[in-house]
Amino acid sequence: HARQLLAGLDSSEVAHLLESMPGKPRKVLWELLSEDFQGDVLQYLGDEVRQSFLSRMQPDEVAAVIEGLETDDIADILQELPDQVFQQVLLSMDEQNRQRLQTVLSFPEDTAGGLMNTDTITVRPDVTLEVVLRYLRLRGELPEATDSLFVVDSSDRFVGVLPLANVLTRHQDDLVRSAMRDDIEAIPADTDAQEVATLFERRDLISAAVIDDEDRLLGRITIDDVVDVIRDEAEHSLLSSAGLDEDEDTFAPVGSSARRRALWLGVNLLTALMASAVIKIFEPTIQAVAGLAVLMPIIASMGGIAGSQTLTLVVRGMALGRIGDSNARWMLGKEMAVGALNGLLWALVVGGVAAFWYDDYALGGVMAMAMLINLSIAAAAGVLLPIAMEKANIDPALAGSMALTTVTDVVGFFSFLGLATLLLI
Amino acid sequence: HARQLLAGLDSSEVAHLLESMPGKPRKVLWELLSEDFQGDVLQYLGDEVRQSFLSRMQPDEVAAVIEGLETDDIADILQELPDQVFQQVLLSMDEQNRQRLQTVLSFPEDTAGGLMNTDTITVRPDVTLEVVLRYLRLRGELPEATDSLFVVDSSDRFVGVLPLANVLTRHQDDLVRSAMRDDIEAIPADTDAQEVATLFERRDLISAAVIDDEDRLLGRITIDDVVDVIRDEAEHSLLSSAGLDEDEDTFAPVGSSARRRALWLGVNLLTALMASAVIKIFEPTIQAVAGLAVLMPIIASMGGIAGSQTLTLVVRGMALGRIGDSNARWMLGKEMAVGALNGLLWALVVGGVAAFWYDDYALGGVMAMAMLINLSIAAAAGVLLPIAMEKANIDPALAGSMALTTVTDVVGFFSFLGLATLLLI
Ligand SMILES: [Mg+2]
Ligand SMILES: [Mg+2]
Ligand SMILES: [Mg+2]
Ligand SMILES: [Mg+2]
Ligand SMILES: [Mg+2]
Ligand SMILES: [Mg+2]
Ligand SMILES: [Mg+2]
Ligand SMILES: [Mg+2]
Ligand SMILES: [Mg+2]
Ligand SMILES: [Mg+2]
Ligand SMILES: [Mg+2]
Ligand SMILES: [Mg+2]
Ligand SMILES: [Mg+2]
Repeated sequence: HARQLLAGLDSSEVAHLLESMPGKPRKVLWELLSEDFQGDVLQYLGDEVRQSFLSRMQPDEVAAVIEGLETDDIADILQELPDQVFQQVLLSMDEQNRQRLQTVLSFPEDTAGGLMNTDTITVRPDVTLEVVLRYLRLRGELPEATDSLFVVDSSDRFVGVLPLANVLTRHQDDLVRSAMRDDIEAIPADTDAQEVATLFERRDLISAAVIDDEDRLLGRITIDDVVDVIRDEAEHSLLSSAGLDEDEDTFAPVGSSARRRALWLGVNLLTALMASAVIKIFEPTIQAVAGLAVLMPIIASMGGIAGSQTLTLVVRGMALGRIGDSNARWMLGKEMAVGALNGLLWALVVGGVAAFWYDDYALGGVMAMAMLINLSIAAAAGVLLPIAMEKANIDPALAGSMALTTVTDVVGFFSFLGLATLLLI
Repeated sequence: HARQLLAGLDSSEVAHLLESMPGKPRKVLWELLSEDFQGDVLQYLGDEVRQSFLSRMQPDEVAAVIEGLETDDIADILQELPDQVFQQVLLSMDEQNRQRLQTVLSFPEDTAGGLMNTDTITVRPDVTLEVVLRYLRLRGELPEATDSLFVVDSSDRFVGVLPLANVLTRHQDDLVRSAMRDDIEAIPADTDAQEVATLFERRDLISAAVIDDEDRLLGRITIDDVVDVIRDEAEHSLLSSAGLDEDEDTFAPVGSSARRRALWLGVNLLTALMASAVIKIFEPTIQAVAGLAVLMPIIASMGGIAGSQTLTLVVRGMALGRIGDSNARWMLGKEMAVGALNGLLWALVVGGVAAFWYDDYALGGVMAMAMLINLSIAAAAGVLLPIAMEKANIDPALAGSMALTTVTDVVGFFSFLGLATLLLI
């Protein structure tokens, strides 16, 4: 019954189903799939779910399951295996496949070389399109997402790109040399995956050649894998600000989820203790004016929100390459001006609210000053923290938000309670 | 000098440059560009920056600038113009272009119909590949991202997809009918853009046909525009949680930035006042035990972080279609278990810290109980809030985080101060 239902779905849909279920039914469904189909499904699964299946398989099972896949997808899967299993699977492959795989595996996963596939079709510049057409017919099926052939010289050096569209529409007697495009650059294998994605996005590419540092053609990157890079990056920005991993299995067991999240809560506890330590300094002041305890979370909260707005814009601007050394100072000036403007506005509002609530103009004044200070510092921190983190090689998407709210909590409590101690006691 | 520098850049790179500068140099750079080039650049700009240029142009200028663009890109630009300008630009176009444009414009921007272009190449099922090849050669250049032709019957109904790869590799005497693929479905024009993106991602499509409800071919969607949808969606999830718009210009003037952000700060102030109102109830308690004011932010902060983790996972799970009615209950159970486990762990830790810090076991006990309560409620709220918002048609990416921290602040302060009042006074 379940098998019949599955028969109508393709591998990416089954992968989606598996990602949408808790561990037990997931395991049952997986066992229902044939070996070949398991391989197809594996390439669409997130790292954590995939890992859970692979870790229960023997090396020869893994080898059988991934047999029909493309080199780049096999590479992705193999990289997650323990070293010993990895070596055994590699040994069980034929010479040609092993060599191809080793080319891809010789580059870090997040570079052009790690993203590429080795299924390029190459032609020489000095043959006619007729010859190319005949060659393609002889060859039969083209690899997925083939929108162009690559033109290489006799020492396998990349010369240009021959779009299939040109093969189809140009005169058959034309030489490849005259029908090819030499304005499309190949991508060096050590290019960062992020940069590859930007290139594909800006130039609307379907595929691109990957070359080594001597211009030799190594493979090609296709848009479907770039889309996965873009999606992964987006998930990373979104999830890491909550201390989560983008590969986290939504339906992971309670125990492992709790353990992973505990770490982030622990980090947060340390930052919260810092804020508490600041408040503790002013315990006598609060003892004297308990209303301060009622109002102080407002200062901290507004600072946190204003700072997060700046931080989010700056982190995005840096990721998109819009904010760099040349305009960081401008950005700081702008955000501090925005912070000061909103600081003034909300200083008046909350100052008024506090003065009215407690019928105490001095308290309202303290509230207003602290608000202005905290929103200004929040803006500065929202710009400077991510820039400093980038320079220190700390991921601002991960640590930025927690560092920022620590600053706004500490500054907010300190300025509010400090001013209150000076002016109200 | 600047012109020479620009000559080496293509339109997407110039668009990137423009997005990376403040208003004044941006305007200067824009004025340096030729009309044609301005059109090319326009299609790559974000909505807000584009708007700033368009709003300063006369209808005939707009018409001249967008002349060379593709229908789908023209539609995107026109949709941002005021109605009057829009009509004038439309009138200045030739009959064929206007009709094409009106087809695209008749669908909402965020549907398959709004995403499509009208540059399809169609063939009949009963001709040979040789005829197709001859037709393509006569026709000359193919539209960008053409990986397949669409096969339609005599009443323009979609029948199947003929990959260019098959035109190239199959026998020339084969009929289109036998060389085409009929396993690739066309997309109904009213399909949501999100769904279109999911389809492209799962099936690794390069282009897809768009049909009306009588199966007639209307146009085609290409992967480059789907990539833009994916990117926009990702930006939306990231930015809206800080109350920002994904089209926001990073380098917008101080005044308009401050105004937009003020709104979100105002909403936050209302939620912060709710939390303050809760604390105010317990002002006498704080007066008696000022240490409570030192410790209470810890409870609120831990609840906010734990709840955000759950919320982020659930919002993502819903966006990816992994969490729905069928497994929401399971998810609630899991997250509450995770919340309770972490609640226990951190209750012990912070209870211990408080007891040690103030040398007061009762205070430690109150702290521990409040922590357990708040982390459990945080987990429940993290699951239930986004689900309820989705049902009420409120965007959980926008409102979720603020609603959640309001819950965790209110529950955190109430349970901690309430328990303290009951047990310590
Ligand atoms: Mg990964
Ligand atoms: Mg890879
Ligand atoms: Mg693009
Ligand atoms: Mg691939
Ligand atoms: Mg892939
Ligand atoms: Mg915090
Ligand atoms: Mg838009
Ligand atoms: Mg275009
Ligand atoms: Mg559109
Ligand atoms: Mg895909
Ligand atoms: Mg387009
Ligand atoms: Mg486009
Ligand atoms: Mg809040």
